[in-house]
Amino acid sequence: MATDTDLARDLAALVGPGHVRTDPGALTAYGRDATPLFHALPQAVVLPGSTEEVAAVLRYATEHRVPVVPRGAGSNLCAATVPLTGGIVLVLTRLNKILEVSPEELLARVQTGVSTAALADAAAARGLLYAPDPGSRTVSTVGGNVATCAGGLRGLKYGVTRNYVLGLEAVLPTGEIIRTGGRLWKDVAGYDLTRLLTGSEGTLAVITEATVALLPAPEESGTGVAYFDSLADASRAVADVISAGIVPATLEFLDRKCIAAVEEFAGLGLRQDAGALLLFGDDGAPPTVAGNLARIQEVCADAGALETTLAEDVARADALLAARRCSLPALSRLGSLTILEDATVPRHRQAEMVDRIDEIAARHDLLIATFGHAGDGNLHPTCVLDPEDTEGADRAHRAFAEIFAAAIAMDGTITGEHGVGAAKLPYLADKIGADQMALLRRVKTAFDPAGILNPGKLGS
Amino acid sequence: MATDTDLARDLAALVGPGHVRTDPGALTAYGRDATPLFHALPQAVVLPGSTEEVAAVLRYATEHRVPVVPRGAGSNLCAATVPLTGGIVLVLTRLNKILEVSPEELLARVQTGVSTAALADAAAARGLLYAPDPGSRTVSTVGGNVATCAGGLRGLKYGVTRNYVLGLEAVLPTGEIIRTGGRLWKDVAGYDLTRLLTGSEGTLAVITEATVALLPAPEESGTGVAYFDSLADASRAVADVISAGIVPATLEFLDRKCIAAVEEFAGLGLRQDAGALLLFGDDGAPPTVAGNLARIQEVCADAGALETTLAEDVARADALLAARRCSLPALSRLGSLTILEDATVPRHRQAEMVDRIDEIAARHDLLIATFGHAGDGNLHPTCVLDPEDTEGADRAHRAFAEIFAAAIAMDGTITGEHGVGAAKLPYLADKIGADQMALLRRVKTAFDPAGILNPGKLGS
Repeated sequence: MATDTDLARDLAALVGPGHVRTDPGALTAYGRDATPLFHALPQAVVLPGSTEEVAAVLRYATEHRVPVVPRGAGSNLCAATVPLTGGIVLVLTRLNKILEVSPEELLARVQTGVSTAALADAAAARGLLYAPDPGSRTVSTVGGNVATCAGGLRGLKYGVTRNYVLGLEAVLPTGEIIRTGGRLWKDVAGYDLTRLLTGSEGTLAVITEATVALLPAPEESGTGVAYFDSLADASRAVADVISAGIVPATLEFLDRKCIAAVEEFAGLGLRQDAGALLLFGDDGAPPTVAGNLARIQEVCADAGALETTLAEDVARADALLAARRCSLPALSRLGSLTILEDATVPRHRQAEMVDRIDEIAARHDLLIATFGHAGDGNLHPTCVLDPEDTEGADRAHRAFAEIFAAAIAMDGTITGEHGVGAAKLPYLADKIGADQMALLRRVKTAFDPAGILNPGKLGS
Repeated sequence: MATDTDLARDLAALVGPGHVRTDPGALTAYGRDATPLFHALPQAVVLPGSTEEVAAVLRYATEHRVPVVPRGAGSNLCAATVPLTGGIVLVLTRLNKILEVSPEELLARVQTGVSTAALADAAAARGLLYAPDPGSRTVSTVGGNVATCAGGLRGLKYGVTRNYVLGLEAVLPTGEIIRTGGRLWKDVAGYDLTRLLTGSEGTLAVITEATVALLPAPEESGTGVAYFDSLADASRAVADVISAGIVPATLEFLDRKCIAAVEEFAGLGLRQDAGALLLFGDDGAPPTVAGNLARIQEVCADAGALETTLAEDVARADALLAARRCSLPALSRLGSLTILEDATVPRHRQAEMVDRIDEIAARHDLLIATFGHAGDGNLHPTCVLDPEDTEGADRAHRAFAEIFAAAIAMDGTITGEHGVGAAKLPYLADKIGADQMALLRRVKTAFDPAGILNPGKLGS
C-alpha cells in the first residue's frame, strides 16, 4: 500500500488537489456513518467530480491494492460506509446533477450524489412521483438508496428502491465503466446486473448514475390514525385490512414506548393510554382513497381499536407522518446512544415478534422501543443506551443476536431495508447458509478480483 | 463425457429408469423449443421428481462434464432451451405442485414446473391476482417465466415477472441447494440473487421452487378498442394517455397486417380499413376503471382515432384480448415458418421504430407484421416465411440484425421479454458492450465453474 503522502499526491493528480482531504477533521468525520459504535480512520477522503474521475481512482486503487469505501450521505445504519481497513473514502456528493425528468417516459436520470428528496421534488414539479421514501430521504443520496435497496413508508403499496431502478451507470473496481439496463421496464438483455448492483452496498461497483421509474402523482392522499390496547390488536387489524383486499400506501405503527417518546418530543396530542398507534394512509383517485380509508377505519374498529380518526387536513396528515418519521430522534433523547435495527418478519407474525423483542429486552435489562412498517412486517426495534455504558452495549449486542435469530426462525430476515454492512455481516450466514455465503464471495470476486471495494462488508 | 449408454444407466440410478428417456422420438422432441430454425439432439431427457434429484443430476453432470439444459414447457422463442452441445435436457414438469396460496401474506409458493395459468387460477380461486401474464401463460411454466423474466400484456401497470418473485429455491450446477430471498417484500440480506437468477435463462442455476407475490384481485376490469389511420397516430395516443397521468393495465397494438391476419383467423369483426388497432384495458375500483376508460377514449379521439368502442360485456372483452393473443397463430397461417422477435424501444419512439421495421422489411422483400405492447414500447415484429425458402430465412436474419441495431440506436434493447438464448447471443455485445460481456462470463463462472449449465447461451 502507498504511504499516506504518496497516496494523497497520486489522488490529487487524478481528481484535483482541492478534492482530496487528509486533514484529521475530515478523516475523523468520514471514518463514521450513522451507525453507532463503528468507526475507523481512512487514509484519504476523495471527492471525484465525474464518472471518469471515479474510474481513475478505482483503477489506481486496484493497481495499488488500496481499499475504497464508496459513500453518499453516510446516513446508513449498518456501518456499510465505515472504512474498516483504512484506504480511501470515495464521496460521491459532487455528482449531484439531475440529468433529466421525463413525463413522457415516466423516468428520471440522475447522478447518484443527488439527494432522494431533490429527486422527489424534481419529479413532483412535473406532476410525477418518485415512490421510494426512506426515512432518511432528506439527506440520503439516490446512490446510497440504490446501493442499499432502501425501503420506506410507502413500501407496502409501492415496493422498494429495486422496483424503480431501470438502469445504472457503474464503475467496476478495475476501472471499466458499464451501463446496465436502460430506459425500459422491459429489458432482458443479459443478466440483471441492475438489480444485482441494487443492494450490493458498494461492494461490487461504484454506481455513478441511475435511471429510475416515476409514476403519475396520485391525485389525492389521506391519512388516519388508530389506537389499540396492544400491538397484537393492531397487527390483527393490519392482517384484516390486507385480507379485505386493501393494500394501502402506508401502514405504520409505534409501540407504547415510542408513542410516549414522540409525544414528549413533538407534542402532537397523541393518546398516551394506548398500547399501539397505527398510522394508515392511502393515495390515488379521490373516491378510492376515501373508500379505502373508511374501510380501514371499519376494520380497525372491528379489530378492537380504542379510537380511529382521519386527519382533517394536509397539515394534520403531515404532522402524523412526522410523528412516525421522528421516532428515532425522539427516542434518541432518552439516551444519546441509540441502536436502530430492522429485523423483519411475515406480517402475520409481527405481534409475536414484538412480544419476543419485549421479552428479550426485559431479560437483558434494556430499553428497546419498537416502531416500523406494519404492512411489511419491517420492525425497527431501537435500543436506547447511555454511551458510557459499555456493559449495556454488550447486553444490547447479545439481545439483538437473539432478535435476529427469532426473526429468522419466523421465516423473516436480519435486515429488511437497512442492509448488512459490517454490523450485520456476523449474522448473515445464519440467514442464507454457508453455500450461499460462498457463492456471494465468488460473485464478489467476479466484480472485484483484488478485493479493494468496501472490504469487510457484503461478499467478504 | 460418458457414453450414451453409461449416461442413461447412471441417470436412471439417480431419478428412476421411468424418468430417463433416450428414444429417438423424445430426443427429437426435446431437441427443439418454440424457436424456429434451432434444433440439436440431446443424449438423454431426464425428468426429476424432486429438488434432491435435480441436485443429484447436476452433481453428476459437473463431475462428468455433461451439459445440462433445464427446460419447462419449452415455449421460449430465443432457443434458450435447445441442447446445442448435446448432453441432458432436464425437464422440470414433474415438479408441479402448488405448495401454498396465502391470502394473508399475499403470496404463493410453487414448484417451478407448475404452469403459469395454474398458478393464476389458484390465486384467483382465493380472490387474488398473479399479475404477470405472458402470451404463453396457458402452457409456459412458472420456472420458465422466472428464468426468462417473462413480461406480458399487463406489464405497463403491473411490471414483469421480476417484480413478483420474492424468493427462490435453486440448485447450483455443483449440486448445492440454495434458498434466496423468502416471503418478504423487504429483505436485503445478501446480494439480490433472487433477481439475478430471474432472467438468467437456466445458465446459472436450476430453479426448483418460487415464492411469488400476489395482489388482491381487482374488483372490475374493462376493455376497449380504438382504430387509427396509422400506427404513428396510435403511438401518439399512447403517449398522450401516459401524459394524462393514466397508466392502464393494458395498451396493445396490432398493425394493418396483423389486423387482417387476425380477422381472417378469428372473425371478430375487426375493421379492415384501419392502419392500426389499439386495445386498451384497465382494472381496479369500478369508478376508477370507468373514468380511466372514458378518458382514454377521449384522448384517442383527440389523437385522431377513426373510432373508439368499449367492450359491452366480458365476452366481448375476452374476444378482443383473444384477438391480441392470437396474433402469432393468425400470422403463422400465412406461412408455416414465423420468426417472432421482441425489439423494444422507449414508448415515444415506437412509431418511428415500426416505420423502420417496415422499411427494412420492404428492402429485404419480407413480410414482417408487427404487434406488441404499446405501453412498454415492446414490439413483436414477426416475419412470415415458407419453411423451404432458405434464401428468405437468410434475408430475415439480415433484416432482424438491422432491426436490433435500430432498436439499440433508439435507446432500446434487443429483447424486451423473450430473452437472449442462443438466438440473440450474437447481438448481445452490441447492446451491453465488451466489458459487460466479460463481466457476465465471470458471473457465470462464479455459479458454474465447469460450464455445464446451458452452454452456448447467456454467459458464454
